[in-house]
Amino acid sequence: MTDEDAQELGITESKEHATGDWYAEVVQKAGIADYAPMGGFIVTRPRGWALWESLKDHLDAKFKATGVDNAYFPLFIPESYLEKEKDVVEGFDPEVAWVTHGGHDELEERLAVRPTSESIIAPFMAQWTRSHRDLPMRLNQWCSVVRWEATETKPFFRTKEFCWQEGHTAHETAEEAWEETMLRLDQYEETYEELLAMPVLRGRKPDHDKFPGAETTTTVEALMPDGKSVQGGTSHDLGTSFAEAFDITYTDEDEAEATAHTTSWGLSWRALGALIMTHSDDQGLVLPPAIAPTQVAIVPIWQEDTREEVLDYADELAADLEDAGLRVDLDDRDTRNPGFKFNEHELHGVPLRIEIGPNEVEDGEATLVHRPDGESVVADRETAVDDVDDALDDVYAKLYDAAEENLEMNVREADEPNQILGTIGQHGGYVKCGWCGDEACETVIKDEIAAEIVMVPLDEDEEPIHEDCAMCGDEALETAYFARTY
Amino acid sequence: MTDEDAQELGITESKEHATGDWYAEVVQKAGIADYAPMGGFIVTRPRGWALWESLKDHLDAKFKATGVDNAYFPLFIPESYLEKEKDVVEGFDPEVAWVTHGGHDELEERLAVRPTSESIIAPFMAQWTRSHRDLPMRLNQWCSVVRWEATETKPFFRTKEFCWQEGHTAHETAEEAWEETMLRLDQYEETYEELLAMPVLRGRKPDHDKFPGAETTTTVEALMPDGKSVQGGTSHDLGTSFAEAFDITYTDEDEAEATAHTTSWGLSWRALGALIMTHSDDQGLVLPPAIAPTQVAIVPIWQEDTREEVLDYADELAADLEDAGLRVDLDDRDTRNPGFKFNEHELHGVPLRIEIGPNEVEDGEATLVHRPDGESVVADRETAVDDVDDALDDVYAKLYDAAEENLEMNVREADEPNQILGTIGQHGGYVKCGWCGDEACETVIKDEIAAEIVMVPLDEDEEPIHEDCAMCGDEALETAYFARTY
Repeated sequence: MTDEDAQELGITESKEHATGDWYAEVVQKAGIADYAPMGGFIVTRPRGWALWESLKDHLDAKFKATGVDNAYFPLFIPESYLEKEKDVVEGFDPEVAWVTHGGHDELEERLAVRPTSESIIAPFMAQWTRSHRDLPMRLNQWCSVVRWEATETKPFFRTKEFCWQEGHTAHETAEEAWEETMLRLDQYEETYEELLAMPVLRGRKPDHDKFPGAETTTTVEALMPDGKSVQGGTSHDLGTSFAEAFDITYTDEDEAEATAHTTSWGLSWRALGALIMTHSDDQGLVLPPAIAPTQVAIVPIWQEDTREEVLDYADELAADLEDAGLRVDLDDRDTRNPGFKFNEHELHGVPLRIEIGPNEVEDGEATLVHRPDGESVVADRETAVDDVDDALDDVYAKLYDAAEENLEMNVREADEPNQILGTIGQHGGYVKCGWCGDEACETVIKDEIAAEIVMVPLDEDEEPIHEDCAMCGDEALETAYFARTY
Repeated sequence: MTDEDAQELGITESKEHATGDWYAEVVQKAGIADYAPMGGFIVTRPRGWALWESLKDHLDAKFKATGVDNAYFPLFIPESYLEKEKDVVEGFDPEVAWVTHGGHDELEERLAVRPTSESIIAPFMAQWTRSHRDLPMRLNQWCSVVRWEATETKPFFRTKEFCWQEGHTAHETAEEAWEETMLRLDQYEETYEELLAMPVLRGRKPDHDKFPGAETTTTVEALMPDGKSVQGGTSHDLGTSFAEAFDITYTDEDEAEATAHTTSWGLSWRALGALIMTHSDDQGLVLPPAIAPTQVAIVPIWQEDTREEVLDYADELAADLEDAGLRVDLDDRDTRNPGFKFNEHELHGVPLRIEIGPNEVEDGEATLVHRPDGESVVADRETAVDDVDDALDDVYAKLYDAAEENLEMNVREADEPNQILGTIGQHGGYVKCGWCGDEACETVIKDEIAAEIVMVPLDEDEEPIHEDCAMCGDEALETAYFARTY
């Protein structure tokens, strides 16, 4: 390995001491994304886009299995349509990108590049919903949206254009709309756990932080290793507010006109940011097996006289693993030495490396090396396929357990403002406390350390953990979870 | 069936006599697409989007099997980047949508909503291409693009925003770039044949109609039933023009700097328009089995006393067909009678209907009805799964054969202008003739009947079919295919 090559592969920043710089370096060096020429925009490279495709396939299958149809609505929304949301949201003033010219001509009406699509989807849902037989209606689209908010660019976490899915549904009753809201939240939680090996907390946003027009905004929150919380996906029960504004009504079974209850829910590529931030380390990317584009990298190690036998042996093993449905890269490049290959597969986050040298061939074995901690296991060739499966399960468990431990260690209690400030200042993570429900009591904390109430428990009947609001001392009505956020 | 229901399902326009109106009616009544509030934009409804997803999956699998990586580049392109194409294309003046404001602020530099992404992708390919080891580089993205050109909206054929894939590749040699160009053209042709049951013609665009900056633009052309040709997908050999303008160079094996050869290739949702236009009829949509979201609709026909046995029998058949991998809809709705269901599945283009009544149960049979021509076949229950497979093959063959016959009957020859005008005027289709290669000779025809040269044969060494240009009488250098187009 030349010095130049080594430099190209090596992560120089420290996850622990310079998390932001380290994240930016991992994303770029692992070939996940690059910065576009315009601030706030990124280019998602093949290794990054493969992660998004995998996340999309996983979640889309869940949606389709539960009655969701994909559709596609226009990229642009006329200003007058967007304005209609003022009927739902007082003081609505969207920070959007405006198209004002088509070719050489100024447009008669400005078009917003969609920041979210309620205002263009709702009028069509109104048109398509005539009878109770048309309900429930469950639509989803995978697309990108633009919000002119980002200041500094942070790939996947903060970008002006981001990819996401947005689901929009209409139902006959409030109960059905609430069930829908929770079903999608469940699917987000499962996806974080199963695919991304990340535990999340579930909750509601406080009233002052709900999606504009929503009755309830629910959220899954993920704790990052630097102690900040990421909003990992939100699912909104919109009640009848959008249906009233956009006239989504239907004829019920008794031939009476009724107003529908709607929901919307979205998960963005921010999930990829959270994934990368959670598991990766100072050697580069670390990926859970289910989402890794390459699950197993086989690195044959030969001298000139052992080349053929080593490669034949590695070839056969690769074929067996592929037959078992695994995504395998047999790295038989002549132009790179094993050390370079080890580093590169580590940088790229391949969950399991298999080393095959003359010793392995002679002894009928294979050496399996776990990406997260370098644990090395010698497997019998006879049972190698099962052993590799087990090793991938082990890798998943290591990643999930570490994230879970981090989460469990970092939910603390407090009952007065200085304790909240001190705990978050020192440890990060979540601090839960009694809360009277007044936004002003959040502001007390927010102004000091930029921590906010990221959620309150979902069960509205649950007793607050303390009798008094930790900030003002009035009666606590809820339990607030404070954290710094991305 | 009530009158209102019947009206809702019935196509009132005639494919033969009012093709445009008929097309618009089928697209809307079959739930494929609706018109958006802004001219030139459409809403793609679930039944339409399912077709696009199926096309995408089919083509994407071919791309991935031949070394293509998906990626995602920004929606916006800075004006200065787009301007850079002036180095490649004289008089480049794109008809694009311009974003001029973000939130309340005017942008320092206007951003174009991408009309195609060469000018944003090429600079990154330049950055990523350093050594010959980085080549070939094959990138593709599935996205929507905007061109401010459409006047009248025609769903999928003419829309200002359209969905497509755009592939962009870089290679060491001109030969490799040409092979890539042809490989993608082959994959487009195969997709039309296999998935859409449509034969296409392959050719090159005349020089004056090439993609700006391309050495060669190749095309697959599909003949519509109204005699017009649709450009079904294009694959461009860009030579070194983009690589020179955007500095896509690499160090070759001898450590010398060399310029890459690039290609780009795209297929849009216009393919769906061509699909619908080709096979559908005055009863509604007709879909080939491979792309149909529902391949088989089972309609049980019962009286009160036979309900249970009929439904049980239909249930089991549905399960067997699903186990065989077919997409089945067992239409057991109580709220609709069989006549309504027949009409609805016909409107939606379900390739095969299976009728199950008490007679079928008693005789151990199933009645299979082909969508394209209503042919009805009685199958034995024992062999029903195989018979359904065969019936779906028959449906495919009927559709493909009809389209092929239409194509074969509609390629005619001519050797003087009036013959070209008369033949296209009377029959539509393609007229092939000798051509000197001068654009002025195309204009002679174009000015009269708006037919143009849609392609010339791919093999540049092939002799023209006539010695003289049919328009000017000078020596013919090529064979031109004239047709009216969408």
